[in-house]
Amino acid sequence: MKNESICQLYSHSLSSTRKENPSQSPSINHELLIRGGFIRQESSGIYTLLPFGQKVVQNIESLIRSGMNSLGAEEISMPILQPRAYFETTGRWNKIDVLFKLKSNQGNTEYGLAATAEEVVVPVVKDRIRSYRDLPLVVYQIGEKFRDEKRPKSGIIRGREFGMKDMYSFHATPEDFTSFYKQAKNTYLNLFTACGINAKVTEASGGDFTVLPTHEFQAISAAGEDLIINCDSCTFAQNREITTLKDGGGCPKCGQGHLKTDKSIEIGHIFDLGDKFTKAFDFTFTDSGGKRKPILMGCYGIGTTRLMGTIVETHNDQQGIIWPDSIAPYQYHLAGLNLEDDAVRDQAFQVMTAIQSMGASVLYDDRPDVKAGDKFATADMIGIPNRIVVSERTFTEGIIELKRRDTGVTSKISLEQLFITQKRG
Amino acid sequence: MKNESICQLYSHSLSSTRKENPSQSPSINHELLIRGGFIRQESSGIYTLLPFGQKVVQNIESLIRSGMNSLGAEEISMPILQPRAYFETTGRWNKIDVLFKLKSNQGNTEYGLAATAEEVVVPVVKDRIRSYRDLPLVVYQIGEKFRDEKRPKSGIIRGREFGMKDMYSFHATPEDFTSFYKQAKNTYLNLFTACGINAKVTEASGGDFTVLPTHEFQAISAAGEDLIINCDSCTFAQNREITTLKDGGGCPKCGQGHLKTDKSIEIGHIFDLGDKFTKAFDFTFTDSGGKRKPILMGCYGIGTTRLMGTIVETHNDQQGIIWPDSIAPYQYHLAGLNLEDDAVRDQAFQVMTAIQSMGASVLYDDRPDVKAGDKFATADMIGIPNRIVVSERTFTEGIIELKRRDTGVTSKISLEQLFITQKRG
Repeated sequence: MKNESICQLYSHSLSSTRKENPSQSPSINHELLIRGGFIRQESSGIYTLLPFGQKVVQNIESLIRSGMNSLGAEEISMPILQPRAYFETTGRWNKIDVLFKLKSNQGNTEYGLAATAEEVVVPVVKDRIRSYRDLPLVVYQIGEKFRDEKRPKSGIIRGREFGMKDMYSFHATPEDFTSFYKQAKNTYLNLFTACGINAKVTEASGGDFTVLPTHEFQAISAAGEDLIINCDSCTFAQNREITTLKDGGGCPKCGQGHLKTDKSIEIGHIFDLGDKFTKAFDFTFTDSGGKRKPILMGCYGIGTTRLMGTIVETHNDQQGIIWPDSIAPYQYHLAGLNLEDDAVRDQAFQVMTAIQSMGASVLYDDRPDVKAGDKFATADMIGIPNRIVVSERTFTEGIIELKRRDTGVTSKISLEQLFITQKRG
Repeated sequence: MKNESICQLYSHSLSSTRKENPSQSPSINHELLIRGGFIRQESSGIYTLLPFGQKVVQNIESLIRSGMNSLGAEEISMPILQPRAYFETTGRWNKIDVLFKLKSNQGNTEYGLAATAEEVVVPVVKDRIRSYRDLPLVVYQIGEKFRDEKRPKSGIIRGREFGMKDMYSFHATPEDFTSFYKQAKNTYLNLFTACGINAKVTEASGGDFTVLPTHEFQAISAAGEDLIINCDSCTFAQNREITTLKDGGGCPKCGQGHLKTDKSIEIGHIFDLGDKFTKAFDFTFTDSGGKRKPILMGCYGIGTTRLMGTIVETHNDQQGIIWPDSIAPYQYHLAGLNLEDDAVRDQAFQVMTAIQSMGASVLYDDRPDVKAGDKFATADMIGIPNRIVVSERTFTEGIIELKRRDTGVTSKISLEQLFITQKRG
């Protein structure tokens, strides 16, 4: 999606900024995403992604897809309606307290709404695996998940309905599992870095999923609902739920740094599930010696809409959001001033088509009756990385004004120079 | 997705063919999609998209996206959990008989699971529109829909959970609505043609949605649940539910052809909703004279998973599916024979990487211990448009064998010739 060459007239977009704060504003991401025209709240913990938000989430999904494909994983789509019978096998029908449940009026089949997908993926993969030669096998999906959370209050960071990538890996040996798990961990770190997030790999508990230790990817932020103990000098981090370590103590890993507690947002979580789920479904394989052996499984999650919220929490200023280039809804924001002048309007239109011809995406603020100050405020609120101004002044000078949203650096360049820069980047 | 350059080893794909028919096989699409490794049934009307099926549906979605974007529509995502309050406004909470309903355990909020999205999209768009200058506005989404169907029996053509593209347009005047509706109709026809389907535009009833006439896009197929009266000479077609015309009669449109009845599958449906939904939500606009006027609305649906099923019903032979190039899961199927010979195995691997370097996608049947006949049967069953064979024989001759799945035409060409052909195509 990122490199899709598209132009959008701001006057005809469903997304538009608003000056007033939303009535209930539980968090920065909620406020900025609503004021910037990215999301709309429909109910507690339930949001519509408006066009800008849809583009950001699709860009995040696109980065995730590349990452998962590079791990050799295949994309699938498992159903949201998960039959109750699947949960009977694992005994989790009454154990997952956030599970939404419903019943068909046709024959009384009961379903749980996908909160995760272990109960579906294990029988799906079991169908396919005959022997050790079919392993390892890794699949993932990107889609909606549902959790009946008590009182969702962190904006899009904790929703009753939210976007998630869930990946599942199946292995013949502990060595093969461990090797893949490490690869996945690195891919996750690279992915978060590409999204502008410095994630801390944090030892954590597996909750309902596993008794084995797991790894969370935590982004330090005042909006976080988690607390992590982490070293001020190396990468060591543990979720406070599982640690006995204390603030100010020495780091048990590097021996040099000191420990501190930070609020943080869990943006990813990877689990060594061992044979817990495969055993429940009697999912084994035949090894090279002809023996039946249990299959080992891992699971790897990233919240896609939550990641959007986290990026907003960590990339903003008084004026609005500051999107990293990699996931911005558009690459260029074109603000046209003095558009009542036909010649300027023509130039703005030409700049818009020129940007599109570079293979870049552009949002064109074409409103004829809005003051420069308001147009700049709109651009800052939305947070697109590159702002271009076309006006009477730039028109007579034969140049355009380019401003970076992150650094604030402004430069005056010709359209040709912009073209060359874009093609080079 | 179509042009994504990707290679997949068949031995490590979750998708794999099966020789035996599924135990309950209600239709050709169900049987062929399951035997080809495209889908897996989880429950009545509920399917997992396996990797091959996921790719086909993503290719369909990609064509739809291009079509909708060309209409100036913006993509959004509305929630699957639709609060009951929205339905109170339109009075449809108890009228939509296929609506799945559920309740939160936190505060007793009730939700309907998205069967369609009029109740959400109208308030979403109402938020944005201030005057006639903000119109027209068109949005669409692609995602899961849910309908509590009695006994889903047409395979993936009628599911309790299924993929759908739903688009909604909002207009100030009947003329503007009519002009957009015509454009959308043409875009739909082009889209179905691109998917290899000759769709008939059929006058039909609007059901719960509207008292105005609507247009269905019907694909003639013995697997269809609809009956249409259509002309054997021109494009005239009416759904038998609304017509008084009879088989064998003269065509009321062209006056030349004769009418016949055919079974057909509804793959798209477009509606003139008038002001039914906008009125319910008191959604009006101010015209240029300062008067409040009702907003006119249209809605435009395509079933994405149903379209996959319909293509299978209309594109198959005794051996399996015959995918159109535009939506095939991979462009090339590479069957490696005599792979126990290291030199042949090397050549097959080189062909695979060469295809990928052409920017094309390839499925490589790398199984070392499977006979030629079985590999060809696998290729025919999956139905990828171009099959390439690499074997001891082709290796010594320095050429590869290329066979079209649709025409059966076989040619022997060098890898270089293939490269040139692919780059040209």
